[in-house]
Amino acid sequence: MKTRAALAVEAGRPLEIVDADLEGPREGEVLVEIMATGICHTDEFTLSGKDPEGIFPSILGHEGAGIVREVGPGVSSLAVDDHVIPLYTPECRECEYCHNPKTNLCQSIRATQGQGLMPDGTSRFSVNGQTVHHYMGTSTFSNFTVVPEIALAKVRKDAPFDKICYIGCGVTTGIGAVVNTAKAEAGCTAIVFGLGGIGLNVIQGLRMVGAKMIVGVDLNDDREAWGRKFGMTHFVNPMKVTGDLTAHLIDITGGGGDYTFECIGNTDVMRVALESAHKGWGESIIIGVAPAGAEISTRPFQLVTGRSWRGTAFGGARGRTDVPQIVDWYMDGKIEIDPMITHTLPLEDINKGFDLMHAGESIRSVVVY
Amino acid sequence: MKTRAALAVEAGRPLEIVDADLEGPREGEVLVEIMATGICHTDEFTLSGKDPEGIFPSILGHEGAGIVREVGPGVSSLAVDDHVIPLYTPECRECEYCHNPKTNLCQSIRATQGQGLMPDGTSRFSVNGQTVHHYMGTSTFSNFTVVPEIALAKVRKDAPFDKICYIGCGVTTGIGAVVNTAKAEAGCTAIVFGLGGIGLNVIQGLRMVGAKMIVGVDLNDDREAWGRKFGMTHFVNPMKVTGDLTAHLIDITGGGGDYTFECIGNTDVMRVALESAHKGWGESIIIGVAPAGAEISTRPFQLVTGRSWRGTAFGGARGRTDVPQIVDWYMDGKIEIDPMITHTLPLEDINKGFDLMHAGESIRSVVVY
Repeated sequence: MKTRAALAVEAGRPLEIVDADLEGPREGEVLVEIMATGICHTDEFTLSGKDPEGIFPSILGHEGAGIVREVGPGVSSLAVDDHVIPLYTPECRECEYCHNPKTNLCQSIRATQGQGLMPDGTSRFSVNGQTVHHYMGTSTFSNFTVVPEIALAKVRKDAPFDKICYIGCGVTTGIGAVVNTAKAEAGCTAIVFGLGGIGLNVIQGLRMVGAKMIVGVDLNDDREAWGRKFGMTHFVNPMKVTGDLTAHLIDITGGGGDYTFECIGNTDVMRVALESAHKGWGESIIIGVAPAGAEISTRPFQLVTGRSWRGTAFGGARGRTDVPQIVDWYMDGKIEIDPMITHTLPLEDINKGFDLMHAGESIRSVVVY
Repeated sequence: MKTRAALAVEAGRPLEIVDADLEGPREGEVLVEIMATGICHTDEFTLSGKDPEGIFPSILGHEGAGIVREVGPGVSSLAVDDHVIPLYTPECRECEYCHNPKTNLCQSIRATQGQGLMPDGTSRFSVNGQTVHHYMGTSTFSNFTVVPEIALAKVRKDAPFDKICYIGCGVTTGIGAVVNTAKAEAGCTAIVFGLGGIGLNVIQGLRMVGAKMIVGVDLNDDREAWGRKFGMTHFVNPMKVTGDLTAHLIDITGGGGDYTFECIGNTDVMRVALESAHKGWGESIIIGVAPAGAEISTRPFQLVTGRSWRGTAFGGARGRTDVPQIVDWYMDGKIEIDPMITHTLPLEDINKGFDLMHAGESIRSVVVY
C-alpha cells in the first residue's frame, strides 16, 4: 500500500514528504494508521546527524497514537479498530529483562530495532523501490506504519489521539521517572533541571505524587510560568545565582533534593544534579541524552556519603502495562497534556515543528494526519 | 588518669607509645577500656598524611572492642561492665538522618568529631600538658578512651574482644554493604574488586545471603585462596585477562553483576565496577576511599540503561542497632572472623602492624592490650 510519510533522506536535511510503499504486517506484526504524532528532541538528535546510530534513509517519529487496521498471523492481543500507542521500548513479557522487576528494557527485538528493521530483519518501507529504514521500531512520521505486536500499548477509545500521542514518549518519560524510577513519595523535595517537554512532565509527576517542594532550574526565564503551571514551587535561573549553583540549591532545599532529575542531556548539569541531591539519601536521575562520547564525573565521596546516581529510559515504564494507565490518569484529570501541546501541524509542515523546537518556542508540536 | 597509647605525632612518622593523660567522661560520655583494636587502612590513610582532614597530634584507631569502666552524667543506655564496640558512625536516634530509613549517616556529632574533639568541643586526651586530638570519635589505639554514649554498641559478653573488634569497621563495612546497602538477594551474581580486609567480608556477606556466583578480582594471585575460603566462586586476575577486563567480566557473569563492589579506592576500578554491572538493573557500590581530589567518570548511557552507582559508609549500618546483630552472626557461625585475623600484636609492636599491611602480608592485624 501507499502511505504519506516524512522521509529522512540524510543527516542534516529537512524531511521530505513522500508517498512511501508499505508492505502489510507479517507474523506478529500489526498495521497501524497513525492519527497523530509528537515531534521529540530525539527525532531531532537523529536527524541532525549527532546520533552515532542514526540510519538513513529512514522514517523517523516515535511518539504516536493510532488505530489498528490489520493484524498479521499470530497476533492475539490486538484486533482491528483497537486504539494503540506504539512503544519504542517494547514489552514482550517473556525475556530475561521483562521478567526482572527492576527494569523495563525489554531486549527481545533490540538488535533488529537498532538496525532500523523489523524483527525478521527486513523493512516494510520503501520509496521508489529503495529500502527505507524503520526508526525506534515505530516510524510514526508515516500515516501508516507496521509495528510488532509487543510494541503496541492498547488504550481506551475515548482518548484524543492528538493529546495521548505525547504519552508515547515525553509524558511517560517524565512522569515515569518520578513514579517508576525514583518512586518519589508524598512530602519529598525535588529539583528538576531543564523545563522542556520532559522536565514539565517530571514536575507534574511530582505534583501528582504529592511532592512538598519542586524546584525548577532553567536558563530561560520564560519557562518559570510553564513550570508553575504544572506544580513547580520554586524557580532558579542559574544565570541569576551569585556564587555556586550547587550550594544555592542545597541551601534553598534545606540540604538538597531527595530526588533530582536531569532533563537536558548536559553532562555538567548532570554533575550539579547529583551534587545537589541530599547527603545520605538523595537520588539523582539522568533522563537527558548526552552528546556521543560525553562523560559524567564526580568525586566518589558524593556517593559514599549516600547519594545515588541513576538513569531512566522511557520513564522505567513497561509500555503495554503502564501506558494505558497513564492514559487513564490523563482522562481522569490527574495529569495534564493539553497545555503542553503548543502547536498542531499537518504533515506537510512537519519541518516547521523542528524549527519551533530549535527556537525554543514550542513545548510540544504535534502532527495530525 | 593515665593510659598507654600509640600517639600519631605528625603525618608520615611511626606511632609513638606514650603514657597519655585521659580525663574522665563528661555528660553523655563513657570511659571504655579497649581490650583489642584492629589496624585498618583508614588509620594508615590518615597517618600517611594523604587524608586532607587528618589532625595531629592525635590518637588513631577506630576498630576496637572493650568494657565500660565509668559512665558520665546522663548516660542511660550503658552501665559499668557492659561490653561495647565504639562506633565511628554514631546512632543518636534523634537527628534527621537517624529518622530517615535510607541512611545510617547520623550527623548529631559530626562537626566536633571531624575536628578531633568530643561533642562539647574539647579533648579528653593530653600528653605532657599538650592537647591530643581524638580520631573518628573512637581513638582505640589507647588502652582507655572516652566515647559518646551514642557512639557505643552494646554487645554480648561471651564474644571474644580480639575478634569482634574487627566488627567495629571491616566486617560491618563489607557485610553491611551487601545486606544493608545492596540488599543483595539469594541467587544473585556479584563481582568484588579487591580481596583485602573489606573485600573478603563482602564475599562472606554474599555467601551468607545465598549469592549464586561471586567473582573476585585482584592483582595478587595469593588472594584467590583467601577469596575461595569465604565463598568466592570465580577468580579473575586482571593482569592475566587478554583484552578488555569489563568485557571479560560481563562475559563470565552472563551479562554483568547484579551487584558489584569496589573495595580498593581506585577510581579507574570504580569505573570498571560500574560498567561490569548488569544492564537494566546492576548496582555498583563504592566502598573504597579514593585519594583526595580523584574523580570517577563514565558515559551517562551506562546509567540511562539501568545501572546505578552508589556508595556506602560503615556498610550502611546503624551501629547501636546492627552491630550487636553482626556479633550474633559471628557467634552463631553465620560469618567467620578468626581466619582473617592473621596477626596479633601487643601495643608496643603496633607499627609492625602497619608494615604488614604495606607488605600485603596481613588481612587484619589486631593489637591486644
